[in-house]
Amino acid sequence: MIIIGEKINSTLKAIRPAIESYDTNTIQDIARKQVAAGASFLDVNAGMFTGEEPERLIWLINTIQEIVDTPFSIDSPSPIAIEAALKVNRNAKPIINSITDEAERYNAIMPLAVQYKTGIIALCMDDSGMPETTDERVVIAERLIEKLTKEGLALDDIYIDPLIRPIGTGSHYGVVAIETIRKVKTEFPEAHIACGLSNISFGIPARKLMNQTFLVAAMAAGMDGAIMDPLDKKLMSFMYAAEALMGLDDYCMNYLTKFREGEIEV
Amino acid sequence: MIIIGEKINSTLKAIRPAIESYDTNTIQDIARKQVAAGASFLDVNAGMFTGEEPERLIWLINTIQEIVDTPFSIDSPSPIAIEAALKVNRNAKPIINSITDEAERYNAIMPLAVQYKTGIIALCMDDSGMPETTDERVVIAERLIEKLTKEGLALDDIYIDPLIRPIGTGSHYGVVAIETIRKVKTEFPEAHIACGLSNISFGIPARKLMNQTFLVAAMAAGMDGAIMDPLDKKLMSFMYAAEALMGLDDYCMNYLTKFREGEIEV
Repeated sequence: MIIIGEKINSTLKAIRPAIESYDTNTIQDIARKQVAAGASFLDVNAGMFTGEEPERLIWLINTIQEIVDTPFSIDSPSPIAIEAALKVNRNAKPIINSITDEAERYNAIMPLAVQYKTGIIALCMDDSGMPETTDERVVIAERLIEKLTKEGLALDDIYIDPLIRPIGTGSHYGVVAIETIRKVKTEFPEAHIACGLSNISFGIPARKLMNQTFLVAAMAAGMDGAIMDPLDKKLMSFMYAAEALMGLDDYCMNYLTKFREGEIEV
Repeated sequence: MIIIGEKINSTLKAIRPAIESYDTNTIQDIARKQVAAGASFLDVNAGMFTGEEPERLIWLINTIQEIVDTPFSIDSPSPIAIEAALKVNRNAKPIINSITDEAERYNAIMPLAVQYKTGIIALCMDDSGMPETTDERVVIAERLIEKLTKEGLALDDIYIDPLIRPIGTGSHYGVVAIETIRKVKTEFPEAHIACGLSNISFGIPARKLMNQTFLVAAMAAGMDGAIMDPLDKKLMSFMYAAEALMGLDDYCMNYLTKFREGEIEV
């Protein structure tokens, strides 16, 4: 699994003050812990700092790349903030989080992915709004993949996000998410799927249980990436179990190792 | 989900002595608890009592049907024991657990299902031994369904067990199980799938975690029945979550109710 560590996000109560006060230790500590726990990318988000997003992102990136070389997931809808971050990035190929097929957003962000040779998270959304059905999502994913690969991005650099909506607002949204994952991954096995997990459970109780359930079901359908909390041991345990179950962990070696290391929580 | 409560089984250390000593209270208590927890069927197994299996099964059935009218899953490979049980059964339509496509077993047990108008769990196995691949399992399932429906059984009375093998003995067995479930359920939506869950984790640590993971992945692939422990609150919580996720629980009403009743364990 490609784990995009979600902890360094200005919308989180525990993080916002650390960015606000340029608290290097706290940010570096969370970065280090996420990498130690298996993060493949570190998401950085400074969206709560209206008017200061570029400089806050620059500070986050400089602060983190001092101590780890894990690639970043640059989390912003703003091309100005994204480009500011890309300019100071010295770690390996980052991903932009995210583009959509909305014309304005697409046209502003796509050239940055091309120019800076980044990966990109592509949300199944266009100017007609949030798609309702699986088929609508698959059509948008196909269109985004076609356009992005024409610009020179490799399939391996594209991370489709099926746009998870809460099952509390529509009982069909779980199946829609899972079937979108299955169809896109079957059609484009070299492209990646990367969902935010926690949206699925918005508004219902026992959210962690539902997020664990969704992680497993989505991985069984072919999801190979997620924006998630690698410090959540229980969630990570389900990830290791699902990898072993889906034949992605030869002889269950990683599962057994994680168990011996005390990383599996039953 | 169709829950076949697995607790009244002579191979379980806690149960064998209760059957041995004709301990009516213990057996009735476990039956009652499983029904209260949502069991659709009560499995009864007296296979450890060699030479006495029929009379022990008769005692179990009489003891249980005194206090609940939940249908039985008569768990035996022996046609003599099965018929003894069927003769005393007064509860609603039971299922026989199980038939295979091995000629001798098939020919001995199929007529009982026809004569006593029962449901039946059909294991994907024939005289060539345990199938290795998904396709071999699907072929056996197709053949069993064809033969059983020709004898007059309704699709709705057939519960295909894909024959789960431990992923500790072969990393591919998880995918084989899940793909068999998906293919059989897609081809025969009116037939049921009923797996024993715990085989998947035999020989590896943190078995409960793996069983929960398998339950979710199998349900996402279309499994609508399981031989499981309805008194395992954590496992049941994942079942409720998976039902809500897969759109089988309108407006998440059952999930919300179970949460309010304290039946959801996070």
